[in-house]
Amino acid sequence: MNKDTTIGIITLPGGATAPDGFVACGVECGVRDLGERDLGLLFSERGCASAAVFTRNVVQGAPLVVTRKVIEGGDVRAVVANSGIANAATGQRGLEDAREMQALTAEALGMGAVEVAVASTGVIGEHLPMERISSGIERAAADMSRDGGGFAEAILTTDTRVKEAAVRVEIGGKAVTVGGTAKGSGMIHPNMGTMLAFLTTDAAVEKGCLQRALSDATDRTFNRVTVDGDTSPSDMAILLANGAAGNEPLTAGSAKYPVFAEAVESVTRGLAKEIARDGEGATRLVEVVVDGAADEASAAALAKSVVGSNLVKAAVFGEDANWGRVLTAMGYSGVDFDPDGVELWFGPVKVFENGEPREHEEAEANATLAAGEVRITVRLGEEDVSAVAWGCDLTYEYVRINGSYRT
Amino acid sequence: MNKDTTIGIITLPGGATAPDGFVACGVECGVRDLGERDLGLLFSERGCASAAVFTRNVVQGAPLVVTRKVIEGGDVRAVVANSGIANAATGQRGLEDAREMQALTAEALGMGAVEVAVASTGVIGEHLPMERISSGIERAAADMSRDGGGFAEAILTTDTRVKEAAVRVEIGGKAVTVGGTAKGSGMIHPNMGTMLAFLTTDAAVEKGCLQRALSDATDRTFNRVTVDGDTSPSDMAILLANGAAGNEPLTAGSAKYPVFAEAVESVTRGLAKEIARDGEGATRLVEVVVDGAADEASAAALAKSVVGSNLVKAAVFGEDANWGRVLTAMGYSGVDFDPDGVELWFGPVKVFENGEPREHEEAEANATLAAGEVRITVRLGEEDVSAVAWGCDLTYEYVRINGSYRT
Repeated sequence: MNKDTTIGIITLPGGATAPDGFVACGVECGVRDLGERDLGLLFSERGCASAAVFTRNVVQGAPLVVTRKVIEGGDVRAVVANSGIANAATGQRGLEDAREMQALTAEALGMGAVEVAVASTGVIGEHLPMERISSGIERAAADMSRDGGGFAEAILTTDTRVKEAAVRVEIGGKAVTVGGTAKGSGMIHPNMGTMLAFLTTDAAVEKGCLQRALSDATDRTFNRVTVDGDTSPSDMAILLANGAAGNEPLTAGSAKYPVFAEAVESVTRGLAKEIARDGEGATRLVEVVVDGAADEASAAALAKSVVGSNLVKAAVFGEDANWGRVLTAMGYSGVDFDPDGVELWFGPVKVFENGEPREHEEAEANATLAAGEVRITVRLGEEDVSAVAWGCDLTYEYVRINGSYRT
Repeated sequence: MNKDTTIGIITLPGGATAPDGFVACGVECGVRDLGERDLGLLFSERGCASAAVFTRNVVQGAPLVVTRKVIEGGDVRAVVANSGIANAATGQRGLEDAREMQALTAEALGMGAVEVAVASTGVIGEHLPMERISSGIERAAADMSRDGGGFAEAILTTDTRVKEAAVRVEIGGKAVTVGGTAKGSGMIHPNMGTMLAFLTTDAAVEKGCLQRALSDATDRTFNRVTVDGDTSPSDMAILLANGAAGNEPLTAGSAKYPVFAEAVESVTRGLAKEIARDGEGATRLVEVVVDGAADEASAAALAKSVVGSNLVKAAVFGEDANWGRVLTAMGYSGVDFDPDGVELWFGPVKVFENGEPREHEEAEANATLAAGEVRITVRLGEEDVSAVAWGCDLTYEYVRINGSYRT
């Protein structure tokens, strides 16, 4: 366990079932490839406040339509999710399938359909094999456990590993845990979330406050990740708060709200970085820091433009500290700035200032790209606002995966 | 020669020296790799009206600063261009180098520096070897010819072939020729032009009218090409009109202006398609047609979003008619539309309508991606406005080229 002494955040192992009162299970039901878990249930043993954010893609998968309705109309305490087929662009039958997943889960867990959120991820434009889904839901419901029981695996598609994060903070004398499990590897360019993220906490939190914490954290973390510039129609992040910690319910005005908000952001940041690191075909996590900006929106737009540039991504893969591509990507970000006031670093090596190249050992700058985590820093000469964005390199493997994903 | 009988446009061989009174030359001066032409001059034997469009990247190469000034202040009749080094992000020394290229060219061709446009393309952040450039200018000036003498080769970087187009129309009883030579392979996502394009005509055209013809053609052709989403700081398109055809000078109000405008657009369209076809690592030209839209801006934004999607591009490379990715790219284009009203085709094979998959032979749809030219058609159920965008597939070779371009 690491202790962040400035905010009192303790990092824990585990994910969405780390907070008290949450159980989960993942099973194999035959939607994805043989031998892989592809259906998962997550459940709170107590009633929850719930919040969600959804993709801003104009095209929205059927599960999003169903889930948005129940989150807007009340609160959910369970999630059913499958991988392999996204149930998007599937028309009326797709909607009926999503509603049936919801109803089957409610029945298996003994509650109302309005308490169940539905999520699907995978190929677009295919219908779900509902008999298999139904059998999977029954088996998962019978085997729910505190350790998550493979839930984190069941939501993966082209991901190469599970993504979990959890932290603990103290709120009003009570230990409060926030945890999360996410998936996402390709089609990642969140303009909301563009992945599935299931976040939980045993804190008691008022619904509006919960939504604000999730929306703010999403803006600063999931929305700062790009793998390939493609925003999926299927993705969402959900945060459930079941109050098992016994704290006085938090509102946005609570003195301890900032601690809770930072705990949520810490979990979503951890998941966001894992998603970037596990980008399709990626060999490196790329972190772009912009500071000295006039405002956060500009800093974020610049950082995302750099981390999203195919040319920058290919240069990282090739271990070529080609800073001209960084400057170019800033230049087409839509943000106005003075190029002569920009300073650029690859790792600790400064490569550009005062509008022209700064003398440096090229081999030294290139060497900063050889590690598993790469940092590119941009400083503007404006104010002192900063933002970070995360991505990965562009590799042959990305092309291979996406040239043959469906077949 | 092909004759387009509806508009009376005749296609000619050749490029920027196809119109009367233009000569050019390209020589090897040692900026690019050994054995490749890398410095070119283009010259009109008569005075010209001139127009230009420039990249909208906030970062602008030194040659653009110099060229913008002379085009805004008057008219140029010559162009000096080098490949290998972009002379961008090179500070005060870069500006001085660009001005020296201009002065040396003026001296060699016997005119004023204000009559010379300067362009450079290649690596960002390196200084030009001015002695070699100077020697190249002298040699090129001594060897100018009607057949272009290698000018089209001298402006290439990662391009695999020269790009030329020329057409002839009749205006006021005179045969008028419009020609052009372009380069562009990577860092192509014009939000202006994002490549070098040198266009010429022997028509007599008033300057404002010339600028309008160039700007309109650029919006509909160069600005509809994307290779990798990266907008370069170096690129520009220039159109010179020397009046050698002897027609009465055209203004925007002339009855024959639309014929001239269509001739210019026809040349820029030809060059734009060649640039897309020769995209870095590309094996296929991809043409996305959006029709049934409410307005041209929406149609163009949708078409560009689809043709620019890494996932769509990788799917084309993999010959996988993955229409879900097409619909997804439409969905994050920023254009609002009703997904249920969308129809999609790969070649002649309809794959989606009424909000769900349309039954079709998948192998048949995939087969449309095997040819050198791929067409994806989108129909919205709104009005009858259409737009076309061009791009290419995403291949291993793109990653190889850009992982090792500089070294």
